[in-house]
Amino acid sequence: MSTDDEEVRQVMIVFTHPDHRLHDPTEPHRFGGTMLPPAEIAERADRVLQGLDHAGGFDLRRPPQVERDSLLDVHTDRYLTFLESAHSRWRVATGSPEHAEAVAYIRPVPGTPLTRPTHIDAELGIYSNDVDPILSGTWQAAIAAASCAAAAAEAVVGGERSVYSLSRPPGHHAAPEVFGGYCFLNNTAIAASRLARAGMRTAILDVDTHHGNGTQTVFWERGDVLTASVHGDPTVHFPFFLGHADETGAGPGAGANHNYPLATGTAWSGYSEALGAALDTIRRHKAEALVVALGVDTHVAHGVLALEGNDFGRIGESVAGLDLPTVFVQEGGYEAGVLERDVPAVLTGFLDRS
Amino acid sequence: MSTDDEEVRQVMIVFTHPDHRLHDPTEPHRFGGTMLPPAEIAERADRVLQGLDHAGGFDLRRPPQVERDSLLDVHTDRYLTFLESAHSRWRVATGSPEHAEAVAYIRPVPGTPLTRPTHIDAELGIYSNDVDPILSGTWQAAIAAASCAAAAAEAVVGGERSVYSLSRPPGHHAAPEVFGGYCFLNNTAIAASRLARAGMRTAILDVDTHHGNGTQTVFWERGDVLTASVHGDPTVHFPFFLGHADETGAGPGAGANHNYPLATGTAWSGYSEALGAALDTIRRHKAEALVVALGVDTHVAHGVLALEGNDFGRIGESVAGLDLPTVFVQEGGYEAGVLERDVPAVLTGFLDRS
Repeated sequence: MSTDDEEVRQVMIVFTHPDHRLHDPTEPHRFGGTMLPPAEIAERADRVLQGLDHAGGFDLRRPPQVERDSLLDVHTDRYLTFLESAHSRWRVATGSPEHAEAVAYIRPVPGTPLTRPTHIDAELGIYSNDVDPILSGTWQAAIAAASCAAAAAEAVVGGERSVYSLSRPPGHHAAPEVFGGYCFLNNTAIAASRLARAGMRTAILDVDTHHGNGTQTVFWERGDVLTASVHGDPTVHFPFFLGHADETGAGPGAGANHNYPLATGTAWSGYSEALGAALDTIRRHKAEALVVALGVDTHVAHGVLALEGNDFGRIGESVAGLDLPTVFVQEGGYEAGVLERDVPAVLTGFLDRS
Repeated sequence: MSTDDEEVRQVMIVFTHPDHRLHDPTEPHRFGGTMLPPAEIAERADRVLQGLDHAGGFDLRRPPQVERDSLLDVHTDRYLTFLESAHSRWRVATGSPEHAEAVAYIRPVPGTPLTRPTHIDAELGIYSNDVDPILSGTWQAAIAAASCAAAAAEAVVGGERSVYSLSRPPGHHAAPEVFGGYCFLNNTAIAASRLARAGMRTAILDVDTHHGNGTQTVFWERGDVLTASVHGDPTVHFPFFLGHADETGAGPGAGANHNYPLATGTAWSGYSEALGAALDTIRRHKAEALVVALGVDTHVAHGVLALEGNDFGRIGESVAGLDLPTVFVQEGGYEAGVLERDVPAVLTGFLDRS
């Protein structure tokens, strides 16, 4: 149902948790040819909240803490144990202070190891594929982010039409046993698994500018959740190793993974075509619930795709056209002015057409 | 034959090449909990040369350039092509200046990729397991180091009793398709392969304080070269993922790999026992030629094992007891005073007992 009257727009529930601040890295890290200050920082959530406040019509709530066992739908037990204890083990092993940031620097030579190492520096390399730091508060922050996503899914199971999870650190690059790309727990996958467990045919639409490699890996052989991702061509963009159109799933998940890689600099006309194809796929799947992995780093300022401010409302409108109960889970978006403007634009675009 | 008369000590040929200077990193890198200045720098070779000059009795020579095709005994063609072109490709892809240092930051999620990526940032992750930089001169420096090792082996094939290859960057952590641990081309493996190809039953004795994971990987399934490594326990020391006593080779190489991991802080009494066991293994193999991967980071200053200055002469003497034509190839050793004193100590210890 569409309405042009802003005053009667529905109110959208937003789950947010202050513990996200416990993961707020400060050390520069390598990206391509430069050392960059960290981009995935606590300030991001503040900027989104400012934008939501400015747009109006959002009902902010704090989620209950997600039960650890429910995360086992997405991550392995040993990975959760690692993530929870990594920083304190690393501090002991390296004699580092509490504020120091633990970063992997050594990986196995391919085809090895023969004996699984137990040293924390080795486990950092085993359980990550990137140079992301684990801080003393990372686990608590990641749990807070996952709690937002889980609560948003539960609200939709309980009858809400649409809910936004202001999850950070984000999640869609996190695989069952891998952190990376700023992601530790896969919030999007956690939300989708909850919906699927509740008996709803569930689809994920990932509109982050980077392929949702973690999410694809989580559901690759499952088949209970359809995954569709529209993103910059991984031939030339992060995360490089996954995201091609010919990756379609395996085993019970065969045919349930759909990638729509786009050339660098693709603007709305090309983008909307891929988005339309992804939405058609979700329609054909007869999905009963949707999780949107909501990155707004498709904005031209991020140098991958070339969406502009007005296009984000159109994304929301297009998604609303599916007419599905929808959980929006925050993923990427970093450059100045983008998060505070374009996240509310997607959500209000959705609400205005719902 | 042993002699106590220094004046009649044999002269040892040393192969060294000034192009090693072309790999001289300056950017700090992560190691455990800290950002450290680079340790594997051009100055290391200068310090060794000072020590050799002070000890006397060394005949310095420049090697001919090794033929690229001969490196295919140890490395794959695509890895050599990558290493040779990596820095120029990375400069183009990232817009980096010539002096910038290319470092991997993203790896595949385990079990992937499905499509082998071609982007240089992805290939840096595929072809390395560490945070080592590739500089504009790294290939040329690595070729110079390999040329020293190859020339040393050829000299032994030609009848020299012992030759020292002042190779840097070092090599024993480099696998057929992996750079890491400061190593790009596996100089030790290149020397050993040359000896084996010349028809000599060849053994490698790796006395670097870190396990020779690259060398083990090169010969793991080959069986034409016996590998023995005495090193700090990889459970708690770099390179973590390999180096345990139960790793003994596979296929034609089954039983030809021997690891002697030692507890942190092991001093000469414990060290000499493991060294003796490694030498016995080499004796039982009826080796006709030996390559010593000569790290002197077993010195207590490096915090892994606890050898002192006098022990390095004893290592040389023990190796001389094998009475084999021997190529010494420089591997690790970094802390102040160690390289310039302990490398000559090993070599003169060897010569004094030969």
